[in-house]
Amino acid sequence: MGQFAEHTGLSAGANGVYAGEIHPGWDVLGNANGGYLMSMLGRAALLESGRPDIISLSAHFLAPGRPGPLTATTTSLKQGKRFATTRVDLTGPDRLILSGTVITGDLRDGEGPTLVNQNAPDMPAPLDCPRTVADPDGMFPPPFMLKVEQRLHPDDAAGATGEPRVRGWFRLLDDEPLDTTAAVLASDFLPPTVFNTDLPVGWVPTVQMTVHFRKRPTTEWLLVDSVTHFVQNGTFEIDADLYDDSGELVAQSRQLLLIARA
Amino acid sequence: MGQFAEHTGLSAGANGVYAGEIHPGWDVLGNANGGYLMSMLGRAALLESGRPDIISLSAHFLAPGRPGPLTATTTSLKQGKRFATTRVDLTGPDRLILSGTVITGDLRDGEGPTLVNQNAPDMPAPLDCPRTVADPDGMFPPPFMLKVEQRLHPDDAAGATGEPRVRGWFRLLDDEPLDTTAAVLASDFLPPTVFNTDLPVGWVPTVQMTVHFRKRPTTEWLLVDSVTHFVQNGTFEIDADLYDDSGELVAQSRQLLLIARA
Repeated sequence: MGQFAEHTGLSAGANGVYAGEIHPGWDVLGNANGGYLMSMLGRAALLESGRPDIISLSAHFLAPGRPGPLTATTTSLKQGKRFATTRVDLTGPDRLILSGTVITGDLRDGEGPTLVNQNAPDMPAPLDCPRTVADPDGMFPPPFMLKVEQRLHPDDAAGATGEPRVRGWFRLLDDEPLDTTAAVLASDFLPPTVFNTDLPVGWVPTVQMTVHFRKRPTTEWLLVDSVTHFVQNGTFEIDADLYDDSGELVAQSRQLLLIARA
Repeated sequence: MGQFAEHTGLSAGANGVYAGEIHPGWDVLGNANGGYLMSMLGRAALLESGRPDIISLSAHFLAPGRPGPLTATTTSLKQGKRFATTRVDLTGPDRLILSGTVITGDLRDGEGPTLVNQNAPDMPAPLDCPRTVADPDGMFPPPFMLKVEQRLHPDDAAGATGEPRVRGWFRLLDDEPLDTTAAVLASDFLPPTVFNTDLPVGWVPTVQMTVHFRKRPTTEWLLVDSVTHFVQNGTFEIDADLYDDSGELVAQSRQLLLIARA
């Protein structure tokens, strides 16, 4: 078993309750990465529904997740022919951390007409992009960068564009294969878009995040293209589109975050 | 009280349960418009949390809503200083219709830096755009077009662009003022983007929808700009950005839908 599968693993208890653990090293300043927590939320829904793929995952961030034991409490809302819908609450030792609803199904079942009017961004090949390494001081880039391999577009790695957009390649370590739970992690792993602009760099907590899957990820790398259009009124959005090696869309995500105060 | 407020009104019962009604005329072929149902879901969270504005509303569509009595069952997940998070289940006479989670707060409280890199689309003034009228046969445009005033961009009204984009103005009837619950309705009121393309026209049910508010709507009209980038694998997304009269962003929504089969 690969490290990601191990560190997001859940063991089934009675009545739709699963036990897991927030492993150390996935945090920044003690708070677990949101994508890592959402991966566990998605895994609980997959286990409970018996379906192979996440179709849509929607999560509300209620409290920081600290390393330690975690309980995933699932409630089946619907077991349809094509999709299952499962509510999942992730609870730490003392409080609710993440509450979400997950649609699961089989992404190989999709059929219908195709119409695409957006292309994957131009990117150098993964190994021609610089790998993000963690800052030993532990703040930024955060230590959880050691848990995956992330390679940013050279312009974004240099913070040279001034635009609220970050593009990067993502893969798991040690040839661990990607699945939809890992792609959820990928959707929330890039440095925040606004760090490429003149806006203050600081804590930008996610309030709500939704990921919709459009194709099962099967290639080694995922290309993540994240962009922000509106910083206003104390909040901003990050929209991330995930493509596979062949340039086909795998998922679209959107999160609402609080902007750092000056 | 205006018709919209009346038709989405809820009366409080005990233990966070509210009673409402799916009013006739908001449906197409007997199924209530999704935005109309989400407006009631948002209203339940506003009432239960005691906050004035929806900040973020996320909903999963589980079964069609038919005219008749409706129960909104709320559960408070968090009562924070800035935001409250409330889970809401809308149940009809025999089953769960819509399950959602709503963040509420006061949109006047937002502050922070501003960075905008997307403009409202060029649109003729509302009264220079043709008003959408319902087809007397009852299918498309659906009869619920009588419940609001919608005026499409002339090119979109003519179905002339061939592009999966629809732009329109929205206001309530009889000078009823807009609020965030009405803006939720506006976010899901335009004809589906794909109807402007060569793809088959048919039933395109929403699976999941999320609306994030970025400013309190206070003007008479809302401008809704909806676009689709990817139809693939049996599903498509509609992203809608809502602007007020002054061109400032009010909300962003995204929904995942099933594409009609040929």
